[in-house]
Formats: sequence, structure tokens, C-alpha cells
Amino acid sequence: MLNIGLLGCGRIGAVHAASIRRQAQARVAAVADAVPAAAEALAESAGATVMDSDALINSPDVDAVVIGTPTDTHFDLIHGAAAAGKAIFCEKPIDMSADRIRDCSRAVQAARVPFMTAFNRRFDPSFANLQARLAAGEIGQTEIVTILSRDPSPPPLQYIKSSGGIFRDMMIHDLDMARFLLGEEPIQVFAVGSALVDADIGAAGDVDTAAVTLTTASGKICQISNSRRATYGYDQRIEVHGSGGMLRAANVHENTVEAATGSGFQTAPAKHFFLERYERAYAREMAHFIDAVSHGTQPSPGIEDGLRAQVLADAATLSWQEGVPVQVT
Amino acid sequence: MLNIGLLGCGRIGAVHAASIRRQAQARVAAVADAVPAAAEALAESAGATVMDSDALINSPDVDAVVIGTPTDTHFDLIHGAAAAGKAIFCEKPIDMSADRIRDCSRAVQAARVPFMTAFNRRFDPSFANLQARLAAGEIGQTEIVTILSRDPSPPPLQYIKSSGGIFRDMMIHDLDMARFLLGEEPIQVFAVGSALVDADIGAAGDVDTAAVTLTTASGKICQISNSRRATYGYDQRIEVHGSGGMLRAANVHENTVEAATGSGFQTAPAKHFFLERYERAYAREMAHFIDAVSHGTQPSPGIEDGLRAQVLADAATLSWQEGVPVQVT
Amino acid sequence: MLNIGLLGCGRIGAVHAASIRRQAQARVAAVADAVPAAAEALAESAGATVMDSDALINSPDVDAVVIGTPTDTHFDLIHGAAAAGKAIFCEKPIDMSADRIRDCSRAVQAARVPFMTAFNRRFDPSFANLQARLAAGEIGQTEIVTILSRDPSPPPLQYIKSSGGIFRDMMIHDLDMARFLLGEEPIQVFAVGSALVDADIGAAGDVDTAAVTLTTASGKICQISNSRRATYGYDQRIEVHGSGGMLRAANVHENTVEAATGSGFQTAPAKHFFLERYERAYAREMAHFIDAVSHGTQPSPGIEDGLRAQVLADAATLSWQEGVPVQVT
Amino acid sequence: MLNIGLLGCGRIGAVHAASIRRQAQARVAAVADAVPAAAEALAESAGATVMDSDALINSPDVDAVVIGTPTDTHFDLIHGAAAAGKAIFCEKPIDMSADRIRDCSRAVQAARVPFMTAFNRRFDPSFANLQARLAAGEIGQTEIVTILSRDPSPPPLQYIKSSGGIFRDMMIHDLDMARFLLGEEPIQVFAVGSALVDADIGAAGDVDTAAVTLTTASGKICQISNSRRATYGYDQRIEVHGSGGMLRAANVHENTVEAATGSGFQTAPAKHFFLERYERAYAREMAHFIDAVSHGTQPSPGIEDGLRAQVLADAATLSWQEGVPVQVT
Repeated sequence: MLNIGLLGCGRIGAVHAASIRRQAQARVAAVADAVPAAAEALAESAGATVMDSDALINSPDVDAVVIGTPTDTHFDLIHGAAAAGKAIFCEKPIDMSADRIRDCSRAVQAARVPFMTAFNRRFDPSFANLQARLAAGEIGQTEIVTILSRDPSPPPLQYIKSSGGIFRDMMIHDLDMARFLLGEEPIQVFAVGSALVDADIGAAGDVDTAAVTLTTASGKICQISNSRRATYGYDQRIEVHGSGGMLRAANVHENTVEAATGSGFQTAPAKHFFLERYERAYAREMAHFIDAVSHGTQPSPGIEDGLRAQVLADAATLSWQEGVPVQVT
Repeated sequence: MLNIGLLGCGRIGAVHAASIRRQAQARVAAVADAVPAAAEALAESAGATVMDSDALINSPDVDAVVIGTPTDTHFDLIHGAAAAGKAIFCEKPIDMSADRIRDCSRAVQAARVPFMTAFNRRFDPSFANLQARLAAGEIGQTEIVTILSRDPSPPPLQYIKSSGGIFRDMMIHDLDMARFLLGEEPIQVFAVGSALVDADIGAAGDVDTAAVTLTTASGKICQISNSRRATYGYDQRIEVHGSGGMLRAANVHENTVEAATGSGFQTAPAKHFFLERYERAYAREMAHFIDAVSHGTQPSPGIEDGLRAQVLADAATLSWQEGVPVQVT
Repeated sequence: MLNIGLLGCGRIGAVHAASIRRQAQARVAAVADAVPAAAEALAESAGATVMDSDALINSPDVDAVVIGTPTDTHFDLIHGAAAAGKAIFCEKPIDMSADRIRDCSRAVQAARVPFMTAFNRRFDPSFANLQARLAAGEIGQTEIVTILSRDPSPPPLQYIKSSGGIFRDMMIHDLDMARFLLGEEPIQVFAVGSALVDADIGAAGDVDTAAVTLTTASGKICQISNSRRATYGYDQRIEVHGSGGMLRAANVHENTVEAATGSGFQTAPAKHFFLERYERAYAREMAHFIDAVSHGTQPSPGIEDGLRAQVLADAATLSWQEGVPVQVT
Repeated sequence: MLNIGLLGCGRIGAVHAASIRRQAQARVAAVADAVPAAAEALAESAGATVMDSDALINSPDVDAVVIGTPTDTHFDLIHGAAAAGKAIFCEKPIDMSADRIRDCSRAVQAARVPFMTAFNRRFDPSFANLQARLAAGEIGQTEIVTILSRDPSPPPLQYIKSSGGIFRDMMIHDLDMARFLLGEEPIQVFAVGSALVDADIGAAGDVDTAAVTLTTASGKICQISNSRRATYGYDQRIEVHGSGGMLRAANVHENTVEAATGSGFQTAPAKHFFLERYERAYAREMAHFIDAVSHGTQPSPGIEDGLRAQVLADAATLSWQEGVPVQVT
């Protein structure tokens, strides 16, 4: 039985607690949150003990920690948990600064603790299936990756002001997906962006509509486009063109009903909210972490993947600001 | 060059004339119609000579006749054309009476002239593709055939009164398709029907909504359903369940555009009118006839196919009237 | 908190236990099974007490019973639970004999206990969505219902021998769905069937391929077809043609990935097993039962729905045996 | 009756001749080709007169010319036809040099003759439908345009060496489509490219896999990707994300048949060859030209559209070569 300590009892903490409950070989042993009521509510439903975060990290009753606290607290928690020898599951982004992620990486490597970066989309059944078939050579060599990703609606302006911008808080998922699918590191990033959804987002120094082009050393190309708003649900599509064919993953719809009338044939909107769209991805992600830690293997994606996605997001931000392609090493 | 005489210059005559124009090895040499203006209009656009039907049938300048006149004239025209040694392409139904079709069949066989019954749907690219793959064994043995066929809207009541009823004028296409797909003759027909679209159709002694179950000696099953009205276009689907899988042909839509909004994802209606829905089927059907006659082979479907579909339509009508399954021999 | 006693700890019992665990206002309080080990295993994972079925039914710690035992035990359990004043959730079929179901119905009505027949498909999100829109008039009047239902593979021959036959053990789900969608009772049933999948099924006096036509007093028509085998997954489609359009529910696929190669465009098989295909239906079904009992309302479908489906299955069996349409009153 | 002179009797000339034959108000009056046999063959099937190109351009029996000759001859033919007062339909690209197109434009404007650039894809029924609905505001303001365009297989290397490169000979269609959909001129072009399909294409100084990002003054974004090879047919998709939703046009498949087996559900490849994929676009394009000229209105797209697409292709080529975004004025 793997005893897990949950750091952060907000929305994403609750998601992870539910995922842990589905696994027979793990349980939520302890929870911590800056808001006592949040910790207590989750503790009660999970049958866990409330602790403060330091105590939790160092508790002998905790084998692994799940970090779902605000980004600026990750650095200290990672260092603390690594020092205490706990396995670590950390929400993305690991940190706003690539250098500080490198620092965390050194601490994790020195402590030889398992570390997993929570890029949940890699565990979506369709995206995972696509990637596995790609890796198995089903369509030969990868040539062009296309990622279309649109959120249903923008987050609160307050969130945007401290999020690091669209490339770091939203597109970072797509940048990780690009790495996952390209099978090769991007060496150049070119980004454009506009505030078309909400002028206030532009006034806050960010964009809500963005497009990036990545290229790799061998000439593979990836195009990503993002919008902070889609009226028809949470639009999440990926497509890989290869030497032997094409693989793509379509949207997940609310149901399979089709209505035919004089206006044509209509199917349901895409699932609207990330929690329902990626429900199975969250469950499979946590299952993988628990399984890896239980078997003493390294979970994936690791801290290096968290770092590289952040480096790409930084490069995209710079490219957008400067108007030129940015090289990544 | 095959010289074709067109008997009947109405809507379907014009379709066949256009199909003939697409073929390099044939031409419309002569046309006839009870309405002189119709004959003249088609003659002018086709560069053909207007004749009366007797003269056309016996003209040495005519190698083959295409019969697109009212059903009750088919019998005499077929006998005349057979006697004159012309190849015959005849619209369905060949005749309202199965016995009279048998009589035509004897005349055609005695004269040894090629004869084709115009079941155009067999030449629809999708239906033909499906049947060819079925015949090639792609899904093993046929077990269940499902045919969903709905017209966009009912024909004029006047037409219905003289059409022989829904089983003979509309479902006959599906009954032929069932034979085409089952690969075995139905031995039993069970039919039900209702007047749900228009009570006047019921008052006229017919139904506008009908369903038939066919069974064959080896136990294959076919279900057909018809409606005289579909708000979303001309709905024409077939599906075959076999021991090794399933083959189905979907509707043909007006275009490939999909619109996504808060209401969901919407594609275009099905093509609305039989002339546009089956445009390619008409062209391929005539190409087959011309090709067969030019090469001295027997076109298919032949007069026997026209007869057997009519026998099934008669049995369906009787089953609906009597409320019991009817055996077919 | 609703305390539920689980009668039967086999596969379906485990499904219901898992569904109950998802509901905050209910718990599995007690379990019973003829096989002690099965009861103990489920009791342990659910934190429940093992009892024998009599004790469970009469326990003051049990508010409601979920009956998932073999069909021939239902009759006594229902009578016992009704006498004890427990709410009852019962797997289908309630009993093999319509008369015995009528007897159960009288006992349930006399005891005034809530009763739900477990026709889980009514709770499938797509089928439920379709039915709700149909009931709301989205496509006007229902005219033709088409149900295509194929199992991935036949059950063991031993099961078939005691199941009551395809119409009672498999098509009964579709017959209930037909009633759900027609909004009107069928008055006539016509059935045909063949043993095409496995000759041994035929030798055992059953069929594995079957088709039924239902008609209602107002002339609505329903066609159902079943096969015990589909190579491409669990094929479950329903379609309703109405005066204003058409509503249909497509299959649920394993994922949304599409592969394009020289052979064409390929998507994943349909979900293969009924437990995964109807996972959400099972959860929503139990949620409805718990909610209804907790609020003192009558759950639906009730015992009358279980009876009527059985009557239709009996009529279909008779129609298949006699080769004639059977009237239902 | 509009008398059309066909300059160039190769593959595309034959396509235009067939399109003209479908129009009642026009005919191919004269044809010219550097290869006499090609001219004679087309003349015979079209019932036209063979002339040399000078004579054709100046013939009083010719009202309009259709230029389908090699690109390097367009300049002189356009000047000649303009001087002779003929309406002009010219294949793309008008010329390899934007400056020379400007020169042609001045000649055409001075002569006040109708001029149409043959961007046939604007007349594809699906693309035209999408653009019309976009222009009508169905999805609000355009924000992101995505164009995925892959040829079935690369042209001969000899062709590539003189084609001006992938941006000028292949992507130019997509650049025109981008302008058609953006409703606003791009002001910046960023391009990347690789030779992934055939190293010989790279050795010849071109690429076979390319991606472009366009931006407009108001911040609209367009991403285009091209490959010279797709195993699954001619892949031609466009998609527009707008403030109110999304419109996309899917591929056109060979037929509507779907096969379901243990491997999943498979539909037909995309139509493979541009002549069959865009058959209706070619016909509608010519109908528009004939209609505009017959009614004295200016056809669209005009010579300015041909120029602007070429300017974008030049900018893309430069961006790819220099590795930086290129501004367009």
C-alpha cells in the first residue's frame, strides 16, 4: 500500500484524490492546505489525516507526495520532499523559471527520488493510443505535427496576469505534446499572437490567440494554434502526418446522438470542461505514478520533460515579443 | 457507334440522354414522345431526329431503345422492340403485372435481344462498391441486410393513386437492392404499413410508411423500412452484417462543411433530389448498357431481375393487406 | 444514508457495488451470495456485512435490496423483500414467466414498496439524451424506430439452453428500448430467426440471428435486428424517424483516433464488452434508484415495464415458432 | 453564345474544354497548341477550328481566351489578348515574376477587358459554401485559419526544377485560399521547409514539406502546411476558427462505404487525383467566367488576386531561405 500525502486540496487536489481512490494499492494518507477548511473537507472524504505541509513531507506515514499547490510554492516543496526521500508527483508548471526547475532537477537527482511531471494529456486514451502507434511505426517517419487546442473560455483576468502568459500556462501542454509526438527535440520556435478574444487580455500584456511553429534538427515541423475561447466546447485535436500515412485524434463529444433536420445533421458539442474532457487522463496518469513508484521504476514524463516544455514556452514567449524565430539548445 | 432511340422525353428521358452524351461510343439518334414539344426539345439539344414510336422502333438507324414512357406503355414497346431485334433498356417497373412481365420476358428471350432493367441504384458508386466487396467475401457470409430508404417528400396524390402503391413504386428499388445484396432469393415476405405522413394517402388506399422483412431459404434476413418523407434530404442507406464484419453505405451530403457552435457540430443535409443523389448512378448505368450491347454481352440487371422485384413487391402488398407473411416461389 | 443489501455478489453484483460507492447518500451495508467466498470478497472491499439472504432481507440495517442473483430466485426474493418493506432494485428478467411477474407485481403493489427493473440501457447517456429530445418533440411524431443490436460473441451454450432464448435474454433489452422510444404500446409482434452464427445454438432450439417488427395501434413501426456475434465490437445503435426529422445514437468507440493510409481512413472498434460499453449507464441507473428511494418517489422503469418487455419477448418467441404475427394485449 | 478560344490543349486545356461543353451559352470556337496533334485532337472532339495562337487571339470569331499554356508564355498571350480586346481566363501562376504580373495587370486595365485568374479551389462547392457562410457572419469574426494541404505524390523532379519551388507552384493555392478566408491582407509571412519526402528535391534546391504562418494587420493568424506526399489520397482541408464558432471543410472521399471488422471501422481514401477531387470546382469556375463575361461583369478572382498570391509565395520563399519573417506591403 502506497501512502500518499496530498499537498494542496483545491480543485486539482480533489481530482487527484479521486484518482487515488480508484487504485487498490494506494491511499491518501495525509493532506495539507493553506486553507484549513479545504484540507479538512478532503481529509474527511478521503479518510486521511490533516497535517501542515512540513509535517506531511517528513511524516514516516507518507511514501509519496502529490503537489497541487500554487506554482510559486513548488520549489520549496520539491526540495523538501526530495530531502525527505519521498516520491514526487508535481503539477505543471514545475516553476515559472527554467533555472529554478534545473535546481529542482539537481535536488531530485541527488536524492534519487522518483519524480513525475503532471502532463496529464499524455495519458488521454486517444492521445496515448496515437503516440504508441506512431512510436510503433504505423505511419513511418513523423513529418508534420498539427495541434489545435482551444479552451472553452478565458480564465479570469487576474489569473492571466500572474500565469506567465498564454505560452506558459496554456500552450505548455501543447508544447509537451509536440515533444511527445515529434520524438525529437525542437531546435527553433517561432510564435505569433493577438488579443482577439478580449482586449483586456491584450492590455494585461498577454494574447489570447496564438500560433507557434517548431522545427527539429532533422527537419520535422510542428504547428500549434491556441485560442482562449471556443463556443463549441473544449477543442483538443492532434494530428501527425508521416511518410506512411496520417494519425489524428478527434474531439470527445458529450454523447453520440445525431439529429437530422432540414438544417442538416447535428452532433453534440465537444465535452466542455477540462475535468470531464480529461477525466480518464487524470485517472490513468495517477495510476501510472502509483504503479511506477510501487515497482521502483521511474515514472514518465519526468522532471526533464517539465523543464524542456518550460524552455519551449519561454522561447515562444520571447519569439512573440521579439518577432523573430528563437533557437533552443 | 451505337445509335440509340429514346422512347419518352420527360424528366427521366432527359437524364438518359445526358448520360448517353457522356459516352463516346453511343449517340441519341432518334427520339419519340406523345408530346411533340418534348420530343422536339430533346431532339434539338441532342442532335437527334424526332420520330413516332413505331417508326423509331423499326428504324434501321436505331440499334437500341431506351424506354422511359409511362409504365402502361412498356408492354407494347418491349414486344415491338424485341420483334424489331433492338437491344432494350427499360425503366422500372417493367409492368404492373408480373404475368405481363413474364410475357415480355418470353418475347425478349425468343428474340434474343439484350435487355436491361433500369435499377439504377445498383450502379451507385457506393452501393456497387459495397456489393462488390460483399461478393468478394470481405465480411464472410451475409446474415442480416438492413435498408433504410426515405424519400424527401411524397409524390402527388394523383401519382400515388395509379402507382400500384408504395411497395411497387418506391420499395421496389429496395427489394431489388435486397436481392442484389442477399445473393439468394427471398422465400418469405412480411409487410406492415401505415399512413402517417398524409392521411389522404391512406384514404387513397395506400400507405406512406412501411416495413418489410424478407427471409431466404438458408435463413438470411433482410429488413427494409420506407417513409415517403424525410426533412433532412433523400435518405438512402444500406448495411450488411456478415460473419466477418459489417459493410454499410452512408448518405451522400450536399458538401463536406461542418459548422461548430454552442449547439454542436453540424454537417449539410443529404442530397435532396433523386436526380442529384443518383446522378453518377444514372451515368454508370447507361455506360454499362452501352458497353454490354456494344460488346455483345448481356447487360445486368436483366428482365428476370425486373420480374423478381415485381413479384416481391406484389407479395409485400398482399402481406400488408392480409396481415400475414406471404411465401414466394 | 441509504443502506443497501446486495443479493448476489457475482459480476453484476460487483458492478452495482461499484455504482453504489460513487453515491454519497448510499452504502452497501450487507451482502449475500450462495457462494460464501464471493460474498466475503465483496463484503471486504465494500466494508459490508455478510448475511444469508433471508437475514439480509429482514435486517433492520437494510433499507433497500439490489437483486442480482440467478433469475429463478428472483420470485422468492421479491416476495420476501416486499413483505419486509424494502425498496427493490431487480435485474432483468424479473422472471421467466409473465404470470409470475404479475404475481410479483401484486406483492409489490400491496406492500407499496419502490421497485425498479434494471433496464440499464435507458440510462446510457446517449440513449437517454435521444429519448428526452424525442419526448420534447424535437423531431415531431415518432414514425419508425430502428434498433440494431449485436453482441460481440455468443454466450456459452449452457447459458443459452436455460436463458429462455434470444428474444427473452438478449432482445428483451431492445424490446424495452422500443417501448421507451415508441411512447405507445406495441400491439403486434412478428419475429423471424436463424442459427447462422453457431449451428449448435440451433440444435439447442434457439436462434442467434433474429429480427422483429412491432406495430402500435396508431401505426408506428419498430424494426429490431439482433446477432449474437459482431467482429467489430459491441454494436448498439438506435434510430428514430419522425415527422420532423431523425434522431440516432451511434456506437461508442474505444478511442477517437483515426488512421489514414492507402487503405483509407480507419477508426477504432466499438467498445467490446457490455460492462465498459454501459459503464456510465450502470452508474446512472443506480444513482436514479438511490435518488428516487431517498426522495420517496417511484423509480422508473418499474415492475410494469419489466412485465411488458417480458410479454413482448414471449410474443416474439411464439411468433418465431409459429411463423405468424402475434397480437399483444 | 460566347465563342471561346483555347490556348493550350494539354491536360488542363481538356478540362476547360469539357467545362465549356457543359455551358449552353458558350462553345469552344478555336484551339491552339504548340503541338499540332494535341490541338487537332481537342478541336475534333470539341467541334472547333485549329489556329495558331496569334490568329486565335485576333480572330473575330473569338470573344474570350482561356490560357492553359506553359507559364512562361502567359505574359505575351495576355498582352496580345488584351490588345485584341478579348476577355481573358488565365491559369495560375500568371507569371513567375510579380513585376511582370503587374505589367500584365496594367495592360489588362488599360484595355478594360475582363480577366480571371484560375484559382479553381475557390469554386469547390464545400470551400465556396464555407467562405460564403463565413462572409455572412455565421461564426462571427475570423481569428485563426488552418489549411492542411497534401498532394498524393510529388511531381517529376524535372517539373520541380522549373516550377519556382513549393511555395510558388503548390502552396500558392493555399495562399490564395488564405486571402479568400481571412478577408484581410496578410502583412507578414514566416516559412519553414524540409526535404523529407525525397532527398533529390532538397538537392534540387527545393523542399517537399513546408509550413507557413501569415498574420494580418488586425492580428488574424493563418497556418498552412504542405506535403508533396500523402498515402491516403489528395488531402485538402480548411478550417476557420471565429469568435462565434468554427467552420471546416473535410476531405472528399471516393465513396461512402464503411467496413467494420476487428480492426475497426474503415472508410474509403480521399479522392486521389486533383482532376477528380476538383472536378466540380473546374466546372463551376468556368461557368462563373462565362457568366460574368456574358453579363459584362468582372469575374473574380481577378488579376490582382493572382498578383497578391504570387507576392505571398515570393515572401514565403524568401522567409524560408533567410529564416526570418518577411513583411509584405
